[in-house]
Amino acid sequence: MVIRAVVWNEFLHEKENEVVRSVYPDGLHAAIAEGLALDPGISVGTATLEEPEHGLPAARLAATDVLVWWGHRAHGRVSDATVAAVAQRVHEGMGLIVLHSGHFSKIFIRLMGTPCSLRWREAGERERLWAINRSHPILAGLGDRIELPQEEMYGEPFLVPEPMETVLISWFEGGEVFRSGLTWQRGAGRIFYFRPGHETYPTYFDPTVRRVLRNAVRWANNPAAAWLDVAEAPNVPVGKAPEKLEVKGAGLHRPGEAGLR
Amino acid sequence: MVIRAVVWNEFLHEKENEVVRSVYPDGLHAAIAEGLALDPGISVGTATLEEPEHGLPAARLAATDVLVWWGHRAHGRVSDATVAAVAQRVHEGMGLIVLHSGHFSKIFIRLMGTPCSLRWREAGERERLWAINRSHPILAGLGDRIELPQEEMYGEPFLVPEPMETVLISWFEGGEVFRSGLTWQRGAGRIFYFRPGHETYPTYFDPTVRRVLRNAVRWANNPAAAWLDVAEAPNVPVGKAPEKLEVKGAGLHRPGEAGLR
Amino acid sequence: MVIRAVVWNEFLHEKENEVVRSVYPDGLHAAIAEGLALDPGISVGTATLEEPEHGLPAARLAATDVLVWWGHRAHGRVSDATVAAVAQRVHEGMGLIVLHSGHFSKIFIRLMGTPCSLRWREAGERERLWAINRSHPILAGLGDRIELPQEEMYGEPFLVPEPMETVLISWFEGGEVFRSGLTWQRGAGRIFYFRPGHETYPTYFDPTVRRVLRNAVRWANNPAAAWLDVAEAPNVPVGKAPEKLEVKGAGLHRPGEAGLR
Amino acid sequence: MVIRAVVWNEFLHEKENEVVRSVYPDGLHAAIAEGLALDPGISVGTATLEEPEHGLPAARLAATDVLVWWGHRAHGRVSDATVAAVAQRVHEGMGLIVLHSGHFSKIFIRLMGTPCSLRWREAGERERLWAINRSHPILAGLGDRIELPQEEMYGEPFLVPEPMETVLISWFEGGEVFRSGLTWQRGAGRIFYFRPGHETYPTYFDPTVRRVLRNAVRWANNPAAAWLDVAEAPNVPVGKAPEKLEVKGAGLHRPGEAGLR
Repeated sequence: MVIRAVVWNEFLHEKENEVVRSVYPDGLHAAIAEGLALDPGISVGTATLEEPEHGLPAARLAATDVLVWWGHRAHGRVSDATVAAVAQRVHEGMGLIVLHSGHFSKIFIRLMGTPCSLRWREAGERERLWAINRSHPILAGLGDRIELPQEEMYGEPFLVPEPMETVLISWFEGGEVFRSGLTWQRGAGRIFYFRPGHETYPTYFDPTVRRVLRNAVRWANNPAAAWLDVAEAPNVPVGKAPEKLEVKGAGLHRPGEAGLR
Repeated sequence: MVIRAVVWNEFLHEKENEVVRSVYPDGLHAAIAEGLALDPGISVGTATLEEPEHGLPAARLAATDVLVWWGHRAHGRVSDATVAAVAQRVHEGMGLIVLHSGHFSKIFIRLMGTPCSLRWREAGERERLWAINRSHPILAGLGDRIELPQEEMYGEPFLVPEPMETVLISWFEGGEVFRSGLTWQRGAGRIFYFRPGHETYPTYFDPTVRRVLRNAVRWANNPAAAWLDVAEAPNVPVGKAPEKLEVKGAGLHRPGEAGLR
Repeated sequence: MVIRAVVWNEFLHEKENEVVRSVYPDGLHAAIAEGLALDPGISVGTATLEEPEHGLPAARLAATDVLVWWGHRAHGRVSDATVAAVAQRVHEGMGLIVLHSGHFSKIFIRLMGTPCSLRWREAGERERLWAINRSHPILAGLGDRIELPQEEMYGEPFLVPEPMETVLISWFEGGEVFRSGLTWQRGAGRIFYFRPGHETYPTYFDPTVRRVLRNAVRWANNPAAAWLDVAEAPNVPVGKAPEKLEVKGAGLHRPGEAGLR
Repeated sequence: MVIRAVVWNEFLHEKENEVVRSVYPDGLHAAIAEGLALDPGISVGTATLEEPEHGLPAARLAATDVLVWWGHRAHGRVSDATVAAVAQRVHEGMGLIVLHSGHFSKIFIRLMGTPCSLRWREAGERERLWAINRSHPILAGLGDRIELPQEEMYGEPFLVPEPMETVLISWFEGGEVFRSGLTWQRGAGRIFYFRPGHETYPTYFDPTVRRVLRNAVRWANNPAAAWLDVAEAPNVPVGKAPEKLEVKGAGLHRPGEAGLR
């Protein structure tokens, strides 16, 4: 079964900033999607902020297996409705890959429950990402490290919950470190945060970075049927308890009444 | 140093429902606070939904070390501003203990990033909570299990992130199980979810339950100074990098410019 | 690529105990292997305690993707050399599925670093395993629970490290609970502990249990090349440091000298 | 209650190597113990390899709340009996702090279940340890980083299980990173690994490092009574099951018989 990936991009910098446009003339999403499409097992579409419903109407989300997210300067313009819909889909089983400045996106903060803050510096310095588990599926085909000649620096502390797995940790020329590849499980959905990808550097054309992203899409894909009622809290009436049971004492609810929330 | 605890209660059921009022005539918060006050190292206050700012104005939150939360039927009436302020305080280091139906509170869902859904049944059945680590500080002075003769059933799956520690797991007469004592770290703050405490049973008068809550307050207290800028993302200018660094390549930001978010 | 699974069984009870022989006339390993072989993507072999090198010589281990382990009364007869070789293979990337009384096997204790102790009762009571994440690959094709009419009881506390994922929790008729499906990552290898399978009950003929085991083999398989030097601690000489470096101060080792251990 | 700490040191280098002796004339253990003793709430003793039972007879271990471990060139000379006794005490609740080259000690490997391997270089380079959670008790009174002008390099991958908390991550001048402060829970015991402390540098005289170690001893101390039977697997006979139960089907054990292991 082909994995249906959608690359979401804010797509503002590329229209307004000459440096960014010169690196990503077709938008960051085009470069990211191009890298994913090298895997014949992945079908790739794109969506951007200024499309209706940010390009992510319900029907499309329902038909998306893995969503890749890049945003930076307009996190606040993503509607709360879209954030809620994406979060629900992740809980149902959709994979989510959050890139670089997406650390401050509404959807990432919503799913982490923490500030997702960090330190940063734009100096075009060298970044070296060290593999913590080189046999992790996300690092398939890569070696023990990834070198990027120029990147923005992100420094710890990175305010996220302890991850399921620390996959990569970055060394920066200027003296900082950063957990640059982290995984979490939220409901039925898998989440991967991947640090590199500042808009002024050609990071998403790098073959190694592209390999990480293809691997991550495969890793994040959950072939199970969507867990549609993942957020429901159904009553289990006494008559349907797994074990025979008699009601004791007074209750709040009448039989058949829905729960409060 | 005395730990400053505040017990927050919705305080609606007790005014409107005769069963609940007969069990908790002064409100659930009064019974919970009474149990905490048995520890001379804890000073206890209360706050309720219908007070101005739900009883939790900024100055009071800033002076709270551990917040205990009970709500059920009016989660939606808690203002988003209060939820944001409580979340910020947890990230800064305030402890949070979420009780029973508080699993669906805005603040718990906000901090977990998951639906926090479960199954339930109101039959006054027997609950037996098994200690997974009987030497955990939250279980100090207790044995290998806690028995409650009558409680509401909560059944798995409980849609929360993998905890830092599974402290207690419940067995229910009707055939279900539930992870009834779980811990998480979020920013500098510790969170404990404790399942028992349905409003129609005298659970918060139970000496064992009260001991758990006192232990939990002590466990959740972080004596470190509040991490006030935990959500900030400061720039580290090139001149202040830990290692000597020269800027390479083009950037997006001018020197001294604030980051985007 | 077909996954190469090996089912290891102590194979003593079946020769000596009439009850066990009547349930598993060909040995527990035969029943487990039969269940795995229903998946054409899995090739299955078996190995038993009394074979030379317990049926697990180095060449066979090197050609095994996932090892399934059942033992009970003769854990101490498994040689330390075999335990060390299996542990090394797990660290290199081989998957390991430990069944039931295998909780006290040398290899499981070796990989967990904890006592792996628990409480138990042999009363043929009912066990109900609840899915914590029904969309987990190990539970593919199953519903929200598994019911076994007769099983041995295992009760918490189960002295293992916090798992990567709690997949299943059991309810027992006699009043106990148990985390009956747990995952861990150790080096490049994935480990799954699955509780059911007492030798006096036909558990390994149960289609649902067999489905869990097939799923677990697929989940535990790591297609990455074996990480053969996973236990080595190579020196990185100054001349091969990623960054240019000058030696400062006195050292313990002469250039090129091997590390101590 | 005063916390009873014991600092264990191999104490071989200091007798045989002039560089080490010049830095630690009284042994590494003396310098570490001196730092701990600055906290009046900690009573400190020492133990070394060549003492009878390595200075850790059963009675002393039973009276130790937190054990600090430094070893390097003679891990293999620590007897298996002592390793087993220390592991049992950790499971019972004793805290354990493993320092630097102790990563390859038998006791650390025993408790981790992994190879505990890493990369290394002895070049006296600069190490900068970044706080991941600056409000963690182990970092009390420290800032956002620790700088050490000269240290041995340890590089990832560090083959340990995912920790409970990543407390510190190191940046090295030569280009590597390392998770240099990690915590785990094993049974009732807490474990902290702290990377710095190569024997040719005066690291254990550094006031900041000493503060970390004092904090770590306080953090690792578990005031609960020792869980003496943590490794036992008691039978729960049918007559003592929490719920009334009737035996069904055939069993392996006769009533009252001990379990197999």
